[in-house]
Amino acid sequence: MTTQQLVDQIRKKKSFLCIGLDVDLTKIPAHLLQEEDPIFAFNKAIIDATHHLCVAYKPNTAFYEAYGLKGWKALEKTIQYLNEKHPEIFTIADAKRGDIGNTSSMYAKAFFEDLAFDSITVAPYMGKDSVEPFLAFKDKHTILLALTSNQGAFDFQTLNVHHQELYKEVLEVSKTWENATNLMYVVGATKATFLADIRKIIPTSFLLVPGVGAQGGNLTEVCKYGMTEDVGLLINSSRGIIYASQQNDFAQDAAQKAKALQQQMELLLT
Amino acid sequence: MTTQQLVDQIRKKKSFLCIGLDVDLTKIPAHLLQEEDPIFAFNKAIIDATHHLCVAYKPNTAFYEAYGLKGWKALEKTIQYLNEKHPEIFTIADAKRGDIGNTSSMYAKAFFEDLAFDSITVAPYMGKDSVEPFLAFKDKHTILLALTSNQGAFDFQTLNVHHQELYKEVLEVSKTWENATNLMYVVGATKATFLADIRKIIPTSFLLVPGVGAQGGNLTEVCKYGMTEDVGLLINSSRGIIYASQQNDFAQDAAQKAKALQQQMELLLT
Repeated sequence: MTTQQLVDQIRKKKSFLCIGLDVDLTKIPAHLLQEEDPIFAFNKAIIDATHHLCVAYKPNTAFYEAYGLKGWKALEKTIQYLNEKHPEIFTIADAKRGDIGNTSSMYAKAFFEDLAFDSITVAPYMGKDSVEPFLAFKDKHTILLALTSNQGAFDFQTLNVHHQELYKEVLEVSKTWENATNLMYVVGATKATFLADIRKIIPTSFLLVPGVGAQGGNLTEVCKYGMTEDVGLLINSSRGIIYASQQNDFAQDAAQKAKALQQQMELLLT
Repeated sequence: MTTQQLVDQIRKKKSFLCIGLDVDLTKIPAHLLQEEDPIFAFNKAIIDATHHLCVAYKPNTAFYEAYGLKGWKALEKTIQYLNEKHPEIFTIADAKRGDIGNTSSMYAKAFFEDLAFDSITVAPYMGKDSVEPFLAFKDKHTILLALTSNQGAFDFQTLNVHHQELYKEVLEVSKTWENATNLMYVVGATKATFLADIRKIIPTSFLLVPGVGAQGGNLTEVCKYGMTEDVGLLINSSRGIIYASQQNDFAQDAAQKAKALQQQMELLLT
């Protein structure tokens, strides 16, 4: 998918919501556990109920790997379902991968070609040759961790190097990499005011923003400091939407939560 | 496995060799492609031929994920085979994971409990709460990326923060984390002289050292600067051993390469 196609979808749906499909079998409605594939059954119900309210889905691969083969199969079925039924939706493999060059190429092949995700999250610690293999794929997007939404973000990401914080150095340096136009960035919503500085370095890149809702981030603040002419934001919510209830009508409850966010976004877009 | 059990194995086998099981179907002997599970067939042959020469095996998960469900199944069969036939051998999931706390817990469960690896490689960028969930597992080891063996290591890892390089800051800070005794570190062999400084910060921790052989590192240099009283080193070789030949007797050729390294190690241990 091209960035322009993503922007067009945002304008059409009046939403820049990304829904995190982080399926935990201890948190989904009990009646689904009798399904042949409870993880996929849950995802399908959530997707069917919310696809008109969001522009992206983001399965975090940890939740699937935790269930071994069964989990991996559910991930495959979920991305296949999305690509068949809703090819206009932007898909993110939240995998936080990164390895030496030839190994990163294997990951890129797995997520971009075999699973056919539109994008993947990647960790920057190993530098240029660990990220460029992902950037080499046309119309695929590499979402680099810059400033994450967890407490540990302050352990290394905000240390000063070259008179600026490490995450800013990551932003600066990554702009020089080959096919850098395929880069997007993870920036946590819990530090919305940081977005003003970030926009000085990457004025137009799309940002994937976790931490609105459950982790305490504020949507209006994020838009105030981070929104661009082409929106440039994907706001992720996972638990706050998908675990809205554990009743039979959990998917409708999830849709209500998504709708509430979409309506806030519609206001912020005008 | 406890660290002492690993040390005992090293003393007994006179080896601190780790063999990387990075299986690429385009590089394995053609006759194996007719097997029901070529990846596992290849690994089994390598393990059967080399288990007395090494103390650890390290599958890089990227190579398995690249083959989807089939690859994940081969990874499961490989670790099961190792745990059943050679429970004394230290197993490393080279996964380079790392995520916010509750998500890292999912990864830890997947690799330590379900797959029953002894250890996993983890990226430090997201800080303390992304690593501590791995450290919480008794007799399991978390191998933190410090200084990697690729060119991109110089992009961020060697930048100065607090008057020392970032990777040294990672070493220092990680020592303060809960259950830090379960930490080991990845330090690339391509910078063997850096090991002297590293040993000032972590005098006894085990180091997993990639980059000997294919990537140009020198074993004698690594031991000179990095070896401790309890050895404290696991030297990894992947391609240099497992792809020694593509003939029918590839496993014997791999064993010869492993034997040559083991013999060098035996000399360095005395």
